[in-house]
Amino acid sequence: MPVDGRVARGDATRRVVLRRAVDVASVDGLEGLSLGRLATELELSKSGVFALFGSKEELQLATVEAAFGIFEAHVVAPARTVEPGLPRLWAICENWLVYSEERVFPGGCFFFNAGAEFDARPGRVHDAVAAASGSFATFIRETAADAVALGHLDADAEVLAFELHALGRAANADAVLNGGTRAYALARRAIRSRLGQNP
Amino acid sequence: MPVDGRVARGDATRRVVLRRAVDVASVDGLEGLSLGRLATELELSKSGVFALFGSKEELQLATVEAAFGIFEAHVVAPARTVEPGLPRLWAICENWLVYSEERVFPGGCFFFNAGAEFDARPGRVHDAVAAASGSFATFIRETAADAVALGHLDADAEVLAFELHALGRAANADAVLNGGTRAYALARRAIRSRLGQNP
Repeated sequence: MPVDGRVARGDATRRVVLRRAVDVASVDGLEGLSLGRLATELELSKSGVFALFGSKEELQLATVEAAFGIFEAHVVAPARTVEPGLPRLWAICENWLVYSEERVFPGGCFFFNAGAEFDARPGRVHDAVAAASGSFATFIRETAADAVALGHLDADAEVLAFELHALGRAANADAVLNGGTRAYALARRAIRSRLGQNP
Repeated sequence: MPVDGRVARGDATRRVVLRRAVDVASVDGLEGLSLGRLATELELSKSGVFALFGSKEELQLATVEAAFGIFEAHVVAPARTVEPGLPRLWAICENWLVYSEERVFPGGCFFFNAGAEFDARPGRVHDAVAAASGSFATFIRETAADAVALGHLDADAEVLAFELHALGRAANADAVLNGGTRAYALARRAIRSRLGQNP
């Protein structure tokens, strides 16, 4: 099949729009997205951008999917290369804190913000955000269960996973709201209390 | 001074508008507030509502203040009547979980949502939200420090306060996003691990 130049250009435009959309949404929320504003800021044709996404809700759903890909590449994929159990659990926590600290998204963790924004608003965007958060929560829980099964830790895996996820999110919340790095230091001390020394 | 009927009516209208505004903002965010929409929903004169608040930002600031009053009445004030140290620390955690569980605000904890919405958006609303969150964080930290000083607990008070605040917020986040009560049960088990039995 010959390469279709229009399709290739459409894919490239879509990537450019979504990279900008995830950054905007991490600061102004998914409701702060506007196809018209994105087109203007990126100096693209409005009709072209509208044709690619169709509606604000489609843009929001595509933005959640793009953000999840970036999140997985920074936090989940590198942790999967670490040996199972406690070492992988440490890697998840540390990757998550660095992902927040380095502001991979300028407004801090994308899913912290999107979760708070859509938690009480039923619909397709809520469901996409809940699925992404749930997938990460499951990854932490399974890794914690492996750590217990392998004898690396003596803990209730479900409670431990909940605590670790809570500590990361609180560090992100406090650091983005108040600035500074104190919240990350507190989270790391609490994580060390739960997991012991970083192996 | 004689009672001024117009002032009294203005205060009453202000209270009605703000009670509705805190509920709307807890679901749709502080950016989701609109003076016109509130006036229409409450069947009030638009010009009267505009005259009371002046601008959307003033309405947002008044909404944060009203929400903080409700939060303090449910969580902080009853905890202050409990004896200092560990009993008060338990009361803060339990009051906070019940405040979230009972949906005092329909979208869950108001300050969790407002913090996520305005954390990366500098300005007066950000500062008001940060001050409210900071005041509660200080209350937990001072109570934890009292518990350590009174010999009720052996812990780093700052880390302990950070953990307890993190657990409450995570329970609220997961329960509002996913429904159900499992997150509250996990938070209570984690809190019990940190504090021991509820005295």
